[in-house]
Amino acid sequence: MSGRTTVQNAELALLLEVTGTPKPGNVDRRREFEDLRFEHFMAGAVGARPGLARAADGERIGHAFERAVAGMADQSAGNTQFGALLLLTPLVAAASTGELTPSDADRAVRATTVADAADFYRAFEHVDVAVDEPPAGLEPLDVRRGSDAIPAVEDRGLTLFDVMARSADVDGIAAEWTGQFGRTFDAAESILDDDGPVPARTSRAFLELLADERDTFVVTRNGPEAATEVKRRARAVRTGAEDATALAEDLVAREINPGTTADLVAGALFVALERGLVV
Amino acid sequence: MSGRTTVQNAELALLLEVTGTPKPGNVDRRREFEDLRFEHFMAGAVGARPGLARAADGERIGHAFERAVAGMADQSAGNTQFGALLLLTPLVAAASTGELTPSDADRAVRATTVADAADFYRAFEHVDVAVDEPPAGLEPLDVRRGSDAIPAVEDRGLTLFDVMARSADVDGIAAEWTGQFGRTFDAAESILDDDGPVPARTSRAFLELLADERDTFVVTRNGPEAATEVKRRARAVRTGAEDATALAEDLVAREINPGTTADLVAGALFVALERGLVV
Repeated sequence: MSGRTTVQNAELALLLEVTGTPKPGNVDRRREFEDLRFEHFMAGAVGARPGLARAADGERIGHAFERAVAGMADQSAGNTQFGALLLLTPLVAAASTGELTPSDADRAVRATTVADAADFYRAFEHVDVAVDEPPAGLEPLDVRRGSDAIPAVEDRGLTLFDVMARSADVDGIAAEWTGQFGRTFDAAESILDDDGPVPARTSRAFLELLADERDTFVVTRNGPEAATEVKRRARAVRTGAEDATALAEDLVAREINPGTTADLVAGALFVALERGLVV
Repeated sequence: MSGRTTVQNAELALLLEVTGTPKPGNVDRRREFEDLRFEHFMAGAVGARPGLARAADGERIGHAFERAVAGMADQSAGNTQFGALLLLTPLVAAASTGELTPSDADRAVRATTVADAADFYRAFEHVDVAVDEPPAGLEPLDVRRGSDAIPAVEDRGLTLFDVMARSADVDGIAAEWTGQFGRTFDAAESILDDDGPVPARTSRAFLELLADERDTFVVTRNGPEAATEVKRRARAVRTGAEDATALAEDLVAREINPGTTADLVAGALFVALERGLVV
């Protein structure tokens, strides 16, 4: 078993995620976007660490998350790992207080408060995050308003768990928060059960998740049809009907970046490292 | 200016070094060795951090280094960044006490003691490091003896600076310790004066150093002729007579890995980050 701490495993999970190759549509060792490059993810992971350390030290999840995002954003590309940190923060908190199990992670997110929700809104001040328009009548709670939305959150007495529950049907990370982190833990077991170098296992876990459900980041940025196409083609890769590298080249060229699925992989790598994955 | 701490910059320097591509003969984003892969450098950097933090906190350089090596070695490939840590530890110490200048770094290494030398020997217990046979009569001081050599070091009253001075003519990192870190600071300025993405600047700084002096790790592992060939061909890349990627493929295939030059680049990236290099 490695002597790494929980925080080191969380940081390493972020680094291993971007190292996984090919991860069609994502930044990986062979592909990147002109304004979102491999090195930005390195700096994002290093910058996020102090915030993750706060979660390990038992600080409020929302505050730890906001600090992690602030540190992550200390590079020139803006948002690299916002969703991954939203997933990792409660997992780090759970790992630091007891066992890293679905029920402990569930307990951690259900214990969040209105103050955590306010922190979450503050985190949007640090980076631009692609999100949907809020439903009619919920404009005051639009995350893009950042801190300006906090009075509306407080008026309604919404905890961070409540905020996540409201977008669980359109956001894959929120769905993890309200679903006992089911896909994250399942993907961790896939990675542990697999063999070979970790970046290859990471690529396979990514494709498995991508074939399993539409990526909500692609739905938001590129539309539902693009997300359905990506899911269908990821399935084709798994059956051997399509080549993963060719799919990767095509998606990057079209700027279709399944970022939520990458975030899930980062969470899964963290769980796998905590459970003894050898690098 | 980034809000990263000195320790974060040191860790990021290790990550950016391996991200620099192409770095002929080294592990980079596109090339690796079967038993020494990209992800091992990620884990090495994350693992080294607590040791580097000790240097920033003013702990003895030797002990901080030994702890950094122990953490670095917590991955399955063994030695990934031993030389880079030997270079970074005094630079981190210097950056944390005053200005990161050649004279402050020089003061830090000249202040090392016999206890630091003992720590240095202990660091060899954690990993296999390729080194030359000791000169006749100096077998008791062979670093490959690890802790067993400490009584001989103590009998002779050798400080860690003294130990480095004895191998400065055959080891490029030791030469930095005794030469005011001249090549490291020069390469940092090259990186800062360059433009474009940091991994491309890193590649160019690596080739510049490689063309400038024979890599001592290649001398030790592959012999002086191979080292001379690498230097000559790195010069050819700089004049446009040879292609960097073709050289990279050839050197990796022949397992000629200019590791000391990569270590110098890691040190240079750290200095550049401390001086405001934007990622």
